[in-house]
Amino acid sequence: MSGARLAVLGAGAVGRSVVELAEEYGHTVTAVADSSSAIVDPEGVDAEAVLQRKSDEGVVGDNDPSEALGAAYDVLVEVTPTTLGDAEPGFSHVKHGLERDKHVVLANKGPVAERYGELRELEADSEGKIRFEATVGGAIPILSTIEDFGPTHITAARGVLNGTANFILSRMAAEGLDYEHVLAEAQDLGVAEADPTFDVEGIDAALKFVILSNVLADGDQEFTLEDAAVDGITEIPGTALDLAAEDGRTIRLIGESTPEGVSVAPRLVPADGPLSVTGTLNIVQLETTHAGRLNISGRGAGGPETATAVLSDVSRLVE
Amino acid sequence: MSGARLAVLGAGAVGRSVVELAEEYGHTVTAVADSSSAIVDPEGVDAEAVLQRKSDEGVVGDNDPSEALGAAYDVLVEVTPTTLGDAEPGFSHVKHGLERDKHVVLANKGPVAERYGELRELEADSEGKIRFEATVGGAIPILSTIEDFGPTHITAARGVLNGTANFILSRMAAEGLDYEHVLAEAQDLGVAEADPTFDVEGIDAALKFVILSNVLADGDQEFTLEDAAVDGITEIPGTALDLAAEDGRTIRLIGESTPEGVSVAPRLVPADGPLSVTGTLNIVQLETTHAGRLNISGRGAGGPETATAVLSDVSRLVE
Repeated sequence: MSGARLAVLGAGAVGRSVVELAEEYGHTVTAVADSSSAIVDPEGVDAEAVLQRKSDEGVVGDNDPSEALGAAYDVLVEVTPTTLGDAEPGFSHVKHGLERDKHVVLANKGPVAERYGELRELEADSEGKIRFEATVGGAIPILSTIEDFGPTHITAARGVLNGTANFILSRMAAEGLDYEHVLAEAQDLGVAEADPTFDVEGIDAALKFVILSNVLADGDQEFTLEDAAVDGITEIPGTALDLAAEDGRTIRLIGESTPEGVSVAPRLVPADGPLSVTGTLNIVQLETTHAGRLNISGRGAGGPETATAVLSDVSRLVE
Repeated sequence: MSGARLAVLGAGAVGRSVVELAEEYGHTVTAVADSSSAIVDPEGVDAEAVLQRKSDEGVVGDNDPSEALGAAYDVLVEVTPTTLGDAEPGFSHVKHGLERDKHVVLANKGPVAERYGELRELEADSEGKIRFEATVGGAIPILSTIEDFGPTHITAARGVLNGTANFILSRMAAEGLDYEHVLAEAQDLGVAEADPTFDVEGIDAALKFVILSNVLADGDQEFTLEDAAVDGITEIPGTALDLAAEDGRTIRLIGESTPEGVSVAPRLVPADGPLSVTGTLNIVQLETTHAGRLNISGRGAGGPETATAVLSDVSRLVE
């Protein structure tokens, strides 16, 4: 099969970009749902019309959202917002797809971070497979690289996986400003959300490193957000960045995953080293058993960037 | 199939590492050949004994090298030295494997850089597939990343793909020394070969960027070394690096591939930017249509590093 039929659950920035780009990747969108509506068309929806309606009226179609789950599709694309704990409704969406023996691609971190073992059990009983490159580092191909090396040949993953926190730390260092001041600026620019808790408390980064640990442990052990040691950036004084700079260093919100555990915390890193990416960039370092250290950096968020990872996963599943 | 039987042609640093690591990756080596001998064992050769004999006596076994081609195997691993022009004997080895409907994995750049179109034609007539991640950037997963994105979604590849030239330029800049002096030092350290022509004239890097252009062009056009515009580093005076440093820049041997062409030449790059990797590291930047720029860096050469790329290719072919 070269082209797949996609049912897209979620019409935020990522979902809209998947709808917009699917045709370019050779795929057909047969259903789209947001939280209050859906459109289903076995011949393929009119992407432009759906996106226009979402923009104009805030809905994607006239159907009940649940109808998208029953549509004819080859791959279910789960891009609803990340939720913690029971990871609903994302988890039930994935379950529904796998029970129909369909493939599922996630950009929603919740099910993969909070209920990884259950997902893998559902997958084992299904003809369908799950993939979730888009949950970690947006466009950066981290999970597929781990898969190619084989998880047993990677001993650790480390890096910067939250662009909002990184933007704030970069600006604090460059301008000598305090956290509160830079946060307000980031909110004005749309880089930080009105409620920035997830990003600045390290939760978003921790979810991504939990997912990495689940992949690296390769079934030997399961991690959830509760297993992660997490510190955010809200208590860092501007003077700490000045002191770091005097020593040729800076501060970054660094996460680390090993098969044994997960941590996220502000760390001192060399100012001219690979971990000190600036702005909203992300970077991951993989420590390998036989090939030294790999560095992969790029845009870790954004609609088209994340949709690219979703569509690469789709291609891997149906090629 | 989870484990594959490998026939390994070539017993240099890469071939020996493939033999040494194959079992850890779940594969069985059923044949090994160097230029003057071979060993064949359908049950799997004794890797340690073969490597010991190669080290002690300079041969891998008692058979004629051609017998390895006739062995029972699932994947032919072509890791003989790169040759230009007709790319022999590597090309004939690949042809032999594909005509037997077997997969072929190359670390030998010759056939992929010089006779790419013919290889793809042979592959089209075969049940076997070719993969060649190890020909570009050692352990760095560049080709699999391009494959995942889809070549039509990458507009250019740019970077540093020769560790020897990069080591020399790094040392010239750091120590204020001339090319000839640093070359001698690199030769003492084993970083540069006694005849460093391939590395310092840019030919090795150019072959890798030719391969990248062939992959990016995706069959629309074919490139060989003759199509590349190549300048090396032998004419760079130490003073040029001093002048660059005064301006916050340095000089690197930068290659660039687009679907339209290939170039390799010394370029001024920002001293603190991603392209100014130091020592023998390699880096590639991929410009994508929807996901911005990706940077991937790591060890671009070395036996175990390159063998890792070979074995990842094997796993992709037989998974």
